[in-house]
Amino acid sequence: MINQLVKSIKDKDAPIVVGLDPKLDYLPEGLLADAIASRGETLDAAAEAIWQFNKGIIDATYDLIPAVKPQVAMYEQFGIPGMEAFKRTCDYCKSKGLVIVGDVKRGDIGSTSEAYAVGHLGQVKVGSRTFHPFTEDFVTVNPYLGSDGVKPFIKICKEEKKGLFILVKTSNPSSGEFQDREVDGKPVYELVAEKVAEWGQSHMGDTYSYVGAVVGATYPEMGAALRKVMPRNYILVPGYGAQGGQGKDLAAFFNEDGLGAIVNSSRGIICAYKQAAYKDKFGPANYADASRQAVIDMREDLKQAFVR
Amino acid sequence: MINQLVKSIKDKDAPIVVGLDPKLDYLPEGLLADAIASRGETLDAAAEAIWQFNKGIIDATYDLIPAVKPQVAMYEQFGIPGMEAFKRTCDYCKSKGLVIVGDVKRGDIGSTSEAYAVGHLGQVKVGSRTFHPFTEDFVTVNPYLGSDGVKPFIKICKEEKKGLFILVKTSNPSSGEFQDREVDGKPVYELVAEKVAEWGQSHMGDTYSYVGAVVGATYPEMGAALRKVMPRNYILVPGYGAQGGQGKDLAAFFNEDGLGAIVNSSRGIICAYKQAAYKDKFGPANYADASRQAVIDMREDLKQAFVR
Repeated sequence: MINQLVKSIKDKDAPIVVGLDPKLDYLPEGLLADAIASRGETLDAAAEAIWQFNKGIIDATYDLIPAVKPQVAMYEQFGIPGMEAFKRTCDYCKSKGLVIVGDVKRGDIGSTSEAYAVGHLGQVKVGSRTFHPFTEDFVTVNPYLGSDGVKPFIKICKEEKKGLFILVKTSNPSSGEFQDREVDGKPVYELVAEKVAEWGQSHMGDTYSYVGAVVGATYPEMGAALRKVMPRNYILVPGYGAQGGQGKDLAAFFNEDGLGAIVNSSRGIICAYKQAAYKDKFGPANYADASRQAVIDMREDLKQAFVR
Repeated sequence: MINQLVKSIKDKDAPIVVGLDPKLDYLPEGLLADAIASRGETLDAAAEAIWQFNKGIIDATYDLIPAVKPQVAMYEQFGIPGMEAFKRTCDYCKSKGLVIVGDVKRGDIGSTSEAYAVGHLGQVKVGSRTFHPFTEDFVTVNPYLGSDGVKPFIKICKEEKKGLFILVKTSNPSSGEFQDREVDGKPVYELVAEKVAEWGQSHMGDTYSYVGAVVGATYPEMGAALRKVMPRNYILVPGYGAQGGQGKDLAAFFNEDGLGAIVNSSRGIICAYKQAAYKDKFGPANYADASRQAVIDMREDLKQAFVR
């Protein structure tokens, strides 16, 4: 799957992953009203509206992008119908040839991490039949519990040829509270990065490992250091756009081969129609076209990362 | 809810939380076969069998215990039907007066943590109606992202009078890889504990905070140190029984008032019928009675923690 991700990034010339993180107030008026008209004021209506919103964006952008990253919390908050919308979104993205990064940030003791891995990346057996309960290609994993919490994911990834992005340095303002604390002169995030490099060696693709890392666009100088610690691990870079990162600041996340990083934008793409740059040209009815234009503009902006 | 938890622990004289972490191979023969007979070899059958298994244990133990801790991964691995079984289990436990600790170990950047908090502890609005998508009273939270990732949970907890247990020192063998690394002479877990004490002050119950901590039974000497760092935060103690902890080793987790800690047992209770101590007296058909006896025995064993 890492080989497929790398190939798709090259083919589409776009190291971009679109964060499908819908909230009800992101939706253009009408989508929720239509769902409520047919299903009442229910969780089911909310989930249907979110799914329709996602479908519009996927249809308008899938030919331009290699991957999507649905944030499961945004679906989980609508309970069972929300989780159905999550699965439906993943399945639809798969049918469009997109690589799916489930942003689930799971991680637990060994047997429990294995259950998460089975559910999101693997297969579960019931009697003589097997099922893929959820259908992501990669998931994000929290490293706080150490190797016990990560290795069961890697085991399932090996069986399924799937991958991980492990939280190293997150994009949020308070990420430094624990991640930046220095242990023998090295920040904790660097200790985690060293482990990611080690874990990654056990599950290599053609040029990059199936085990990647999350490093926020908001900390480019740390990205530069971490690029060197994890030369063969893909870096998933959140925090571009709405959280503050810009293409010209992202050079350090990439390797000399022009690869090694994939940049996430969520609100910047899915809410493009509400932003100054797009709202006059694209109204709410054309929200998906605004998302397409935002992807094209992001692709151009990211080229600034390669002006050396 | 922390006040209710403390009262129920006192009333039942049992600082016990039963981990409802079912796997299919934990179930007595017959439960899955019955579900498959009516639903086929489906995820739905697996989820139904798990729910029936849980219901048996809940019915046999609810009068003895204050709380349950369903581990969501064990449900999530069966996809949507699994999540339905999770919700059904939580709702049923609530109807029996039990406090529910959702062992979800979520944690993300601010807006995402808020979505998790809304989904598991709070309410979500659709049109003019509100819903409680999942119905836990407490959830476990991973602190790796720092305050940004925790405070949205506390905000929702304040609105709902609900609570958290934040991972401080986990019970698994590799927990020390990052948690034990020393920063200015203090291990990372102690820095997290100091934050838990600080966060907890913002949401106090009568005698204890709504914000608690997770510290593994497998590390009693660290429990003693952390008890002092977090005097008014409840400690959820996993790792008793199957993972190796024993009652006599747990004294340090409790305060002088005999409170301040609640000890989790999962396999030790829900799989009691498979264990040497119970399997001759209770066969698979009486698995729930074996679980009841295991709770009674655990209650006695925990009294060793108070022999000072």
